[in-house]
Amino acid sequence: MVVEAGCILSAAKERAAEDGMFFPLALGAQGSCQIGGNVSTNAGGINVLRYGMTRDLVLGLEVVLPDGKIWDGLSTLRKDNRGIDLKQLFVGSEGTLGIVTAASLKLNPLPAQRATALVAVASLDDAVALYRLARRECCDLMSAFEFMPPTAFALAQAAMPDLVMPLSNEYQAYVLMEISGSGLIDVADLMQRFLELGLERSLVLDGVVAASESQARMLWNFREAMVEGQVKRGRHLRTDVSVPLSNLAAFVREAELQLAAELPECLAISYGHVGDGNVHLNVLPPVQTSEAERHAIIKRAKSIVNGVLADYRGSISAEHGIGREKMEEFRAALPPVQAAMLAAVKAALDPEGRMNPGVLF
Amino acid sequence: MVVEAGCILSAAKERAAEDGMFFPLALGAQGSCQIGGNVSTNAGGINVLRYGMTRDLVLGLEVVLPDGKIWDGLSTLRKDNRGIDLKQLFVGSEGTLGIVTAASLKLNPLPAQRATALVAVASLDDAVALYRLARRECCDLMSAFEFMPPTAFALAQAAMPDLVMPLSNEYQAYVLMEISGSGLIDVADLMQRFLELGLERSLVLDGVVAASESQARMLWNFREAMVEGQVKRGRHLRTDVSVPLSNLAAFVREAELQLAAELPECLAISYGHVGDGNVHLNVLPPVQTSEAERHAIIKRAKSIVNGVLADYRGSISAEHGIGREKMEEFRAALPPVQAAMLAAVKAALDPEGRMNPGVLF
Repeated sequence: MVVEAGCILSAAKERAAEDGMFFPLALGAQGSCQIGGNVSTNAGGINVLRYGMTRDLVLGLEVVLPDGKIWDGLSTLRKDNRGIDLKQLFVGSEGTLGIVTAASLKLNPLPAQRATALVAVASLDDAVALYRLARRECCDLMSAFEFMPPTAFALAQAAMPDLVMPLSNEYQAYVLMEISGSGLIDVADLMQRFLELGLERSLVLDGVVAASESQARMLWNFREAMVEGQVKRGRHLRTDVSVPLSNLAAFVREAELQLAAELPECLAISYGHVGDGNVHLNVLPPVQTSEAERHAIIKRAKSIVNGVLADYRGSISAEHGIGREKMEEFRAALPPVQAAMLAAVKAALDPEGRMNPGVLF
Repeated sequence: MVVEAGCILSAAKERAAEDGMFFPLALGAQGSCQIGGNVSTNAGGINVLRYGMTRDLVLGLEVVLPDGKIWDGLSTLRKDNRGIDLKQLFVGSEGTLGIVTAASLKLNPLPAQRATALVAVASLDDAVALYRLARRECCDLMSAFEFMPPTAFALAQAAMPDLVMPLSNEYQAYVLMEISGSGLIDVADLMQRFLELGLERSLVLDGVVAASESQARMLWNFREAMVEGQVKRGRHLRTDVSVPLSNLAAFVREAELQLAAELPECLAISYGHVGDGNVHLNVLPPVQTSEAERHAIIKRAKSIVNGVLADYRGSISAEHGIGREKMEEFRAALPPVQAAMLAAVKAALDPEGRMNPGVLF
C-alpha cells in the first residue's frame, strides 16, 4: 500500500483494514503522527516483537534529496535484491539525508482473533522467563508482551481515578500479553492453555484474560494510564534503553540498586516490551521537588543509568531515536571509525549540510 | 549469536540448534556457503516467507573498511535506534563497500514440530489464492510455500530416477508447503484442517502430508531434483525475478505466452516461493541444441522475460543479487538519480574503488 508521507498513522491503518489487511505499527501517538515521521525516526511501538520496527514494514520510499531531485524508490516488491538498498539510509536518519515524501508499506492479514491477558509475576526475571516460554509455546502469534512494575497500578490510578485494579492482590510485577491471529488457530484457547502452563511452572502467580474487546481495552488503559501517571508527577528522567535480553533483568536490578542508594527519595520505575530487550527505566523525583532540584536529580539519574548501561553495551535509544535531546550523549559515545563513516555518508548525500541541521551531525 | 564470516552456514545452524535455537536461513548451498557471503549478498532461500532475508536476520556486523580500519558494529541488541543504521549498507552490497569479517545473528526458537505437504492445484492463480488463504488460516506459522510447474516431476525424475511420484495423477501445478512451530499448537492438525479447507474451497485438488521426517525429506527431494533436472538439460536461461504478488500469475502467464510464440521449441518452466512474489522463470532449449544456438536462444528468451518484467515494474534479481552476470542489465536500467546516489555512497566509503571492482559499479 502506497501512502503519502503526511498520512496520519491511524488513517493508514484504517485504509489497510478496509481491505482486510493490517499495518502493524502501533504507537501511543498514532492519532497524530505521520508516516513520513514514522519512517524518518524508524518508529517502534507495541507490535515490534512480532512485526518489527518501521524499517521492517517499509517496501519502498520516495525521497526529496538535498539537491532538490526526487528519488523514486517506491517499490512494492516484497523481495528485491539488486545490490545496495538505498532506502535503508533514509529509515531512521531523522531527516538528515533527505525528506521522505511517500512510502510503500508492507501489510499483513488483519488478525480476526485477539486474546489479551494481564498476568502477575514475581519479578522481572520471571517475566523474562515467561516471555521465553511464550516465544516457544505460542510460536510467532504473540503480538505484545509488556512488563510493568509494582507501582504501575498506583501510577495508573493517579491518571485515571476510575480505573479498577483487574487483579485482587498487588504483585511485584505485571505482564500485559497479547496473542493474535486469524483463521484456524483458536487464539483464546491458546492463551488459556499457555497461562495454565505458566501457572504449572510457577511463573504465573495470577492473571485475568479479557472476555471482550472492552475488557481488553481496559487492560491496555492500565498500561497507558501508567505512562500518563508519570507525567502527572512532574518533570522526570525518561529513558528508552535496550540491552541483550539475557541481561535485561540484571541491568534493571543493578541500575535500580544504584539509584536507590544515590537518590533514595526518587521513585525508579522500569517497564517495557521485554522481548526486544527494550526497557523504559524512568526516575521520578518527589512531587514537591522544585524545578532546579529536578534538573540536578535528572542529570544525576541519567548519569547513573547510562553508566550501568555502558557496562552492558546497551543502547541509549532503543526506539525513540536521537533528535536534539540525545545529541550530546550520542556524539560523545560514537567510536571514531563510526563517526567517520557517518560523516562520509552525510557528506556524500548532503554535502552542504542542508537537511535538519543540528540533528545526528 | 556471533560468528566469524568464514563460518559455513550449516555449521552456524548447528551451533544455534545446540542451544535449542534456530537460524532460519536455508539454502541449497548451505553446506558450503559462508556467513560472510550470505551477508554480502543478502541471501534469501526457502524460509524468507516467514523469517525474511539475511538482512532481517543480522543484528550487527564487523567490517574491514577499504582504508584498512575495522568497524566494530557487532551489536547483539534486538532493538537499537541510534540514527543511521550503517550495517544496512554492507548487507547486499556484494563486497563493494567493505569486507564483512563477523556477524551477530538473530535467532528464533527451534521449531519442534513440522508438517510438510505436497499439494496439487489447478493453476498458478489457484496457488496464489491458496497462499493467501494459508497466510490467513495458518497465521505466521507457514514457513515454506513453493510453487512447481506441471513438468516438475518429469524433470525431477531425470535427475533422480528412483523418485516415486507422491501423487497418483499428474496436475497442472504443485505446491510444496510447510508449517512449523513449537509448543502448544498442534502443527500436524493445523495442516490437516488447512488442507480440508483448501479442498472445500476447490483450491486443493489432491495432496499428501508427510507422515515422517523421511517422507518430508522425500517431498523436498522432489523440489530439489527438479532444479537438478534442469541442469541435466544443458545450458539454459535461469532467472530470479520478482513482481508484486497480485501480478505474479499474470506476469508468468504473459511471459510464458510470449515465449511459446517466439521460442516454441523451448520448455519454459516457472517455480518459486510465491509468497514474496519471487519466481524463477527458466527457459530450456531442446536437449540437442548446439552451444552457439543455446547462446542465441538464451539471449532472446532473456529479452522476452525482461520486457514483460519491465511492464510489471519487477526486479531482475529477487534474491540472487547482481554479481558480474547481471551487471550490464542492472546498470542499463538504473535511473540516473539512483545511479548518482549509489556513486556518492561508493565514493564516500571506497574513494579509490578498491573493493570488488567490476561489481555493482
